Amino acid sequence: MQTGSIDQKRKNNHWRGKWNRFGRKWGMRSVDGSFHHAVAPVLLLGQCFALLPVVNIFNVNFRTVRFKLKSVRFCYTMVYLLLTGIHCTLSIRWYIRKGMNIAYFANCVYMGVVYLSAWLFLFVAMRWRTVLEAFAACERSFMQDHYRLQTNARGVSLAWKIRFAGFAIFALAMVEDGLSYYSAYESNIVQIATCNRTNVTVWHNFYLREHPHVFHLVPFNGFTVAVMEWISRCMRYTWTYVDIFIIAFCYGAQFRYEQLFRRLVAVRGMACPANFWHEMRMDYVAVSELVSFLDAQFGHLILLACANDMYFIATQLFNGFQRRRAIASYVYFWYSLLLLIFRTILMLYVGSGVYVASVSPLQLLRNVSSKNWGIDLQRLTDEVSSGENVLSGKQFFFLKRQLILAMAGTLVTYELVLLDQVKKIPDSSTDCSYF
Amino acid sequence: MQTGSIDQKRKNNHWRGKWNRFGRKWGMRSVDGSFHHAVAPVLLLGQCFALLPVVNIFNVNFRTVRFKLKSVRFCYTMVYLLLTGIHCTLSIRWYIRKGMNIAYFANCVYMGVVYLSAWLFLFVAMRWRTVLEAFAACERSFMQDHYRLQTNARGVSLAWKIRFAGFAIFALAMVEDGLSYYSAYESNIVQIATCNRTNVTVWHNFYLREHPHVFHLVPFNGFTVAVMEWISRCMRYTWTYVDIFIIAFCYGAQFRYEQLFRRLVAVRGMACPANFWHEMRMDYVAVSELVSFLDAQFGHLILLACANDMYFIATQLFNGFQRRRAIASYVYFWYSLLLLIFRTILMLYVGSGVYVASVSPLQLLRNVSSKNWGIDLQRLTDEVSSGENVLSGKQFFFLKRQLILAMAGTLVTYELVLLDQVKKIPDSSTDCSYF
Amino acid sequence: MQTGSIDQKRKNNHWRGKWNRFGRKWGMRSVDGSFHHAVAPVLLLGQCFALLPVVNIFNVNFRTVRFKLKSVRFCYTMVYLLLTGIHCTLSIRWYIRKGMNIAYFANCVYMGVVYLSAWLFLFVAMRWRTVLEAFAACERSFMQDHYRLQTNARGVSLAWKIRFAGFAIFALAMVEDGLSYYSAYESNIVQIATCNRTNVTVWHNFYLREHPHVFHLVPFNGFTVAVMEWISRCMRYTWTYVDIFIIAFCYGAQFRYEQLFRRLVAVRGMACPANFWHEMRMDYVAVSELVSFLDAQFGHLILLACANDMYFIATQLFNGFQRRRAIASYVYFWYSLLLLIFRTILMLYVGSGVYVASVSPLQLLRNVSSKNWGIDLQRLTDEVSSGENVLSGKQFFFLKRQLILAMAGTLVTYELVLLDQVKKIPDSSTDCSYF
Amino acid sequence: MQTGSIDQKRKNNHWRGKWNRFGRKWGMRSVDGSFHHAVAPVLLLGQCFALLPVVNIFNVNFRTVRFKLKSVRFCYTMVYLLLTGIHCTLSIRWYIRKGMNIAYFANCVYMGVVYLSAWLFLFVAMRWRTVLEAFAACERSFMQDHYRLQTNARGVSLAWKIRFAGFAIFALAMVEDGLSYYSAYESNIVQIATCNRTNVTVWHNFYLREHPHVFHLVPFNGFTVAVMEWISRCMRYTWTYVDIFIIAFCYGAQFRYEQLFRRLVAVRGMACPANFWHEMRMDYVAVSELVSFLDAQFGHLILLACANDMYFIATQLFNGFQRRRAIASYVYFWYSLLLLIFRTILMLYVGSGVYVASVSPLQLLRNVSSKNWGIDLQRLTDEVSSGENVLSGKQFFFLKRQLILAMAGTLVTYELVLLDQVKKIPDSSTDCSYF
Repeated sequence: MQTGSIDQKRKNNHWRGKWNRFGRKWGMRSVDGSFHHAVAPVLLLGQCFALLPVVNIFNVNFRTVRFKLKSVRFCYTMVYLLLTGIHCTLSIRWYIRKGMNIAYFANCVYMGVVYLSAWLFLFVAMRWRTVLEAFAACERSFMQDHYRLQTNARGVSLAWKIRFAGFAIFALAMVEDGLSYYSAYESNIVQIATCNRTNVTVWHNFYLREHPHVFHLVPFNGFTVAVMEWISRCMRYTWTYVDIFIIAFCYGAQFRYEQLFRRLVAVRGMACPANFWHEMRMDYVAVSELVSFLDAQFGHLILLACANDMYFIATQLFNGFQRRRAIASYVYFWYSLLLLIFRTILMLYVGSGVYVASVSPLQLLRNVSSKNWGIDLQRLTDEVSSGENVLSGKQFFFLKRQLILAMAGTLVTYELVLLDQVKKIPDSSTDCSYF
Repeated sequence: MQTGSIDQKRKNNHWRGKWNRFGRKWGMRSVDGSFHHAVAPVLLLGQCFALLPVVNIFNVNFRTVRFKLKSVRFCYTMVYLLLTGIHCTLSIRWYIRKGMNIAYFANCVYMGVVYLSAWLFLFVAMRWRTVLEAFAACERSFMQDHYRLQTNARGVSLAWKIRFAGFAIFALAMVEDGLSYYSAYESNIVQIATCNRTNVTVWHNFYLREHPHVFHLVPFNGFTVAVMEWISRCMRYTWTYVDIFIIAFCYGAQFRYEQLFRRLVAVRGMACPANFWHEMRMDYVAVSELVSFLDAQFGHLILLACANDMYFIATQLFNGFQRRRAIASYVYFWYSLLLLIFRTILMLYVGSGVYVASVSPLQLLRNVSSKNWGIDLQRLTDEVSSGENVLSGKQFFFLKRQLILAMAGTLVTYELVLLDQVKKIPDSSTDCSYF
Repeated sequence: MQTGSIDQKRKNNHWRGKWNRFGRKWGMRSVDGSFHHAVAPVLLLGQCFALLPVVNIFNVNFRTVRFKLKSVRFCYTMVYLLLTGIHCTLSIRWYIRKGMNIAYFANCVYMGVVYLSAWLFLFVAMRWRTVLEAFAACERSFMQDHYRLQTNARGVSLAWKIRFAGFAIFALAMVEDGLSYYSAYESNIVQIATCNRTNVTVWHNFYLREHPHVFHLVPFNGFTVAVMEWISRCMRYTWTYVDIFIIAFCYGAQFRYEQLFRRLVAVRGMACPANFWHEMRMDYVAVSELVSFLDAQFGHLILLACANDMYFIATQLFNGFQRRRAIASYVYFWYSLLLLIFRTILMLYVGSGVYVASVSPLQLLRNVSSKNWGIDLQRLTDEVSSGENVLSGKQFFFLKRQLILAMAGTLVTYELVLLDQVKKIPDSSTDCSYF
Repeated sequence: MQTGSIDQKRKNNHWRGKWNRFGRKWGMRSVDGSFHHAVAPVLLLGQCFALLPVVNIFNVNFRTVRFKLKSVRFCYTMVYLLLTGIHCTLSIRWYIRKGMNIAYFANCVYMGVVYLSAWLFLFVAMRWRTVLEAFAACERSFMQDHYRLQTNARGVSLAWKIRFAGFAIFALAMVEDGLSYYSAYESNIVQIATCNRTNVTVWHNFYLREHPHVFHLVPFNGFTVAVMEWISRCMRYTWTYVDIFIIAFCYGAQFRYEQLFRRLVAVRGMACPANFWHEMRMDYVAVSELVSFLDAQFGHLILLACANDMYFIATQLFNGFQRRRAIASYVYFWYSLLLLIFRTILMLYVGSGVYVASVSPLQLLRNVSSKNWGIDLQRLTDEVSSGENVLSGKQFFFLKRQLILAMAGTLVTYELVLLDQVKKIPDSSTDCSYF
């Protein structure tokens, strides 16, 4: 934290204070422009779903953040991982017994991916300190005044971008969850009426049908229902959270390239001394190092998120051709599909924004007069135009804008080919058996 | 305007004069080589269809061009946007009620895209001054004598290229419109004979069947028919105009690269001083800046045009397999499809011509002897060979020649996959219901 | 011709002598390494099929070669173009009347492409002198001793490569032609037996069925049959000749890069003076200029050849799934298909060989010590590694090795998709009607 | 061998000693880091299957290794090639007679590819000395102390990587072989029971059904069965061995890039003299030369392996949709398919690792201060960032990570398209005929 005098620090220490003062603070203090500060509320969101159990995330000093075995958060995570592990095993066994089909297989993939993500986030938590250090090493010079001035003028701070994106996607996912509940509730009322059930309440019926693989084995009571609902919610939001998390660190890297770009715009046409260009180059290389660090650390997460999103869009689009359902179920289905597509595209768009921001200074560098030319300017131009400052999914694919088109084209081909395979699936709301 | 003495300007002022003198002028004066001058008649064409409401487009001084709220053109556009908005809403509602199918869905997409385009052109109109300024900044040095001499020798001026392309495509679209009328007219005569209609005239029948969603609600009379026809024509030509507009500004950028190339050809083998190369580099960078400005401003328009053209070629090719129609309808169908394909390929070809023109100086630069080598020549070579001076659809795809092949390959795959889905669609000319 | 003293030239003049001395000469004198000398017999081969009517192709001085309106060759070509034009028109009319199907459509495409190729070759003939000049400009320094020594050591001369490839493909095409005759002959015998024809000879029957669209209109006699057969043979070999011609000029360009490479290998590890590298760079740039000249001149020919070959491989592969024929017909079909695939791959392989040869010096240049580094070496390395010295089909695709894989992948996809469409086609050998 | 004093060499000579001392030695002495030393046991493994008949592979001095006509290994190989040639010819004739189908065709492809691989390995053996020389030329400077120190610190030596990968894949292939046996054995018991065979033992029945094309012609006895089993085993493992061999030399090249990278990491932030960078560049170029040598020598092997693996994954996946078998057969089928996919991905991953390792120094070079900049550093940066140090399948495709995704996408498309073609194949275990 280059900028902090002792005074400043003391003031900052108030900020991490109590929960109920958080909202007020959040509005006021977006002065501190570090990634650590910006991402903290998003981390807290993840911790609600038992992900990323690190402590001291709201502390101004990022060095106090750490992964602590003897903390409530870690225990919470471990309990979740244990219970979810049991739940997934039982579910998959249940699906195999019932006879695997395309919908069951999709459910198994969903569980596997979510459970794997939860573990990956645990490993990310262990290295979270290292990640913050990499960000801090890159951000050191970007905290200084010549960058701050341009950034403040533009108005949208890093913290605002990361938090807005994160919480907006989360809110949309909550609406989806509500629709899912309502749709399932409606379906239960229909089923009770069809099957002439009088011995069960609607909610009893609801949870029995929701988690048959569990209530088949454990008694049905308030506690087991609560645990099951907690696990279901966490799993559902974990899936969404992977995309939120990727968006967060992509914004973190992209923002630095943008600051650099704005500083170059500010000196446009001026004759700058050689050491100015040296400094610019070192800053540019620092961000590029951050990007390749992030690529190495989170590449598997990007790979997992893209593969998973692609798979579910393909499956859901395929389902879209075949089902004619009740109105609630219809609304839920299309909202869910559109949200998934939106989320995927947003994630890819923000991810590829890092690349776009990294090559943006090129035109400005070309405009620099040859009189001021020097070795640093030459190297900077080479580094910008190389186009290698890009995030990837373990180098299997690179997050550029063209990727979105390639993915869409592939999906359309698959769907058109699968058009022949569309068959009617019986409506489950009139099926009266539980298990 | 570097070239204009006061005398010259006074002469130029005549040029913008009255409408009926326009044709004569257009033939005589292609001296003024600016994009502003070249594109003016094409803009006027667009304004006939309520697009691009800017005033003073024929003024020699591009700084007088502006978007004026209190002008007839703006009012005309707003009336069009309002009525078309109502028309589209009603139509889509009508299609949803009739039960959506592949042909209705294509109609809805068509309306949505055209209406969106109209709004986009309004926003383009607001920034039109900025666009002209960007062009003027780039064109400043290209108006000077050393460029003019080579250009005049070749004969084909920028104005001629832009205007010829624009009006030729428009003429072909008018022929298509005529064929569409004739085909629909024939179909109506058949229908009246089939259905034993005696109480309606052919034209009454014609318009009732053409716009059932409207005459369902508003009374059928001369005024409403005229309004409906006006809206239909404007919408139809808007679709064509998007491609014309893209071709216009692509030619605008490509022409400057070609001038630069011709100047390099002229000095081939000569030993040029360092400041010559400095000047060439600055000119090259200026055009590159223009290209990236155009890419940023009109990228969404390119994206929209390509997506739309691709979608309609796919849909129409698919229809091509299934219909067997009357001869007038058959001719119209194939003319329309071929025109659409021709228009799309032309737009992509001209768009990718910018890239081709941008790399064309490379071979000449390599031929320059190493004795005359210097920092500017080095940088110019790097900038030319980087291959980044290219228009794109918001960077999702880049307008290079290979794109055309990729699009064609994708279309063929889709069509082959869809071959299985071809079914007979009932002939609408024997359907006797109106609404 | 830098190398030739007067003595040398006089000796050379013998060479173009009489037809019957050609064979002997051809064996002896591969000293003269120019493209003009190498390609002459291949041109003569084309002239047998009424293509490329230029005179003096065997003259040692390439400047005597020209397109001469008042020559036998030109008249021969014009008669061919006239008659073939009539033939194609009649045939296509005939096919449309009989009702277009996939086989008829393929025939029409074949005729259109072959006729178009014949015209394109006429235009190539008009510019042939320019083409030879471009080659000569590039070859000037490659005729000198330091290049000749390395080339002779390797043994395979340019003339041998071009002529062997050309005549070998032609021989394979002649075998195909023979098989086609035999297969059609067999089929006629079967048909005569089936239909109890006693009033016609086998050959009469043969030619009547081969060209029904013609003998429907003109009387059947020896002269008309001979003319028809001549036209058919020329058309058939024109198709093959396009590929032979492309291979010829690709070898012409590739060979120069290889000479350059061998010279670099010879000086490996030595410390060369700056002017050596200057000379190498100028030679390299000269070949690159030749390549881009060829790309501009023959790009449409490459495009046509690739599109045509792809289309016919796709059509024939599709036919391969459905037909079960007589053994002669079976052998002919597969020989024909395999020859087509072989010819296409060979053409693409040789074409992409230009690119491979153009980047081959890169590793050697990297090995040059930094002590001898200079501006020419730097520029040469940049030019070699840019990878832009490549032939293309009007820039829609580039002739690199990867293209072959991309084409194969696309073809396999199309065939797999079309598997569903395979239907039985009735055997034409038992169809007794002529017209 | 730069490192060896006479003492050292004498000690080393013990090492190649007797077979039974090999295990102990192998554990102790991984000091000698050459590719020759590392790959020796893998070569021995290949020689068990009659591949790569070179002698003295365990000698410390790679110059003693040679291809010797009068050696047991060569005779063994030739006997194998002769017998396998006869076997393949007979088998393919047998399949053609029985009427070719998709499974038979896959068998023919398998035989053809394996037999071709065996011959290719013979040619590799002939040039093996040259290959080892290329490796030694590259490895010379990597054997010195400044590289060794960093390498030893990391712990995993080249020998360990190559040997572990090779023997692990081999072990997995042996398990597959065992499953194949068990599955076939079970199927025979079923068949004997079904067909009421009492005159044959299970094993007699087993071998008769395994090799009908042979025992149809030669008498059934212990010797012929043993020969047939030996041929079958060798063929089966040859297929696996191609991938093992490719992995071995890819590791060999990749390891050198990694050593270079680690040395650069060690000097990070220090100001290094110009001759240090000269040395680094020469080392880098040496490895790049090795890579392009390997690409030229083994490109066809990579092409063959990839084409073959792709073909079999496609065929087996297609079979996966249609068969429902006995449990042993089911386990064998999926184990075999998953092993094939794993093997292919591993081979591609290791192969593309060469490229990844070759560009890894880029970020470090960018961090070098411009004060220490010089011509060697410039050239090194250019060479690293060019991205041309990559293995390929004869340049038809390049071994980069993206290739794996492209292959997977193509396979999925093919499988989806082929979904329509799935038909039931009769169970062969209830077919009672032998021939």
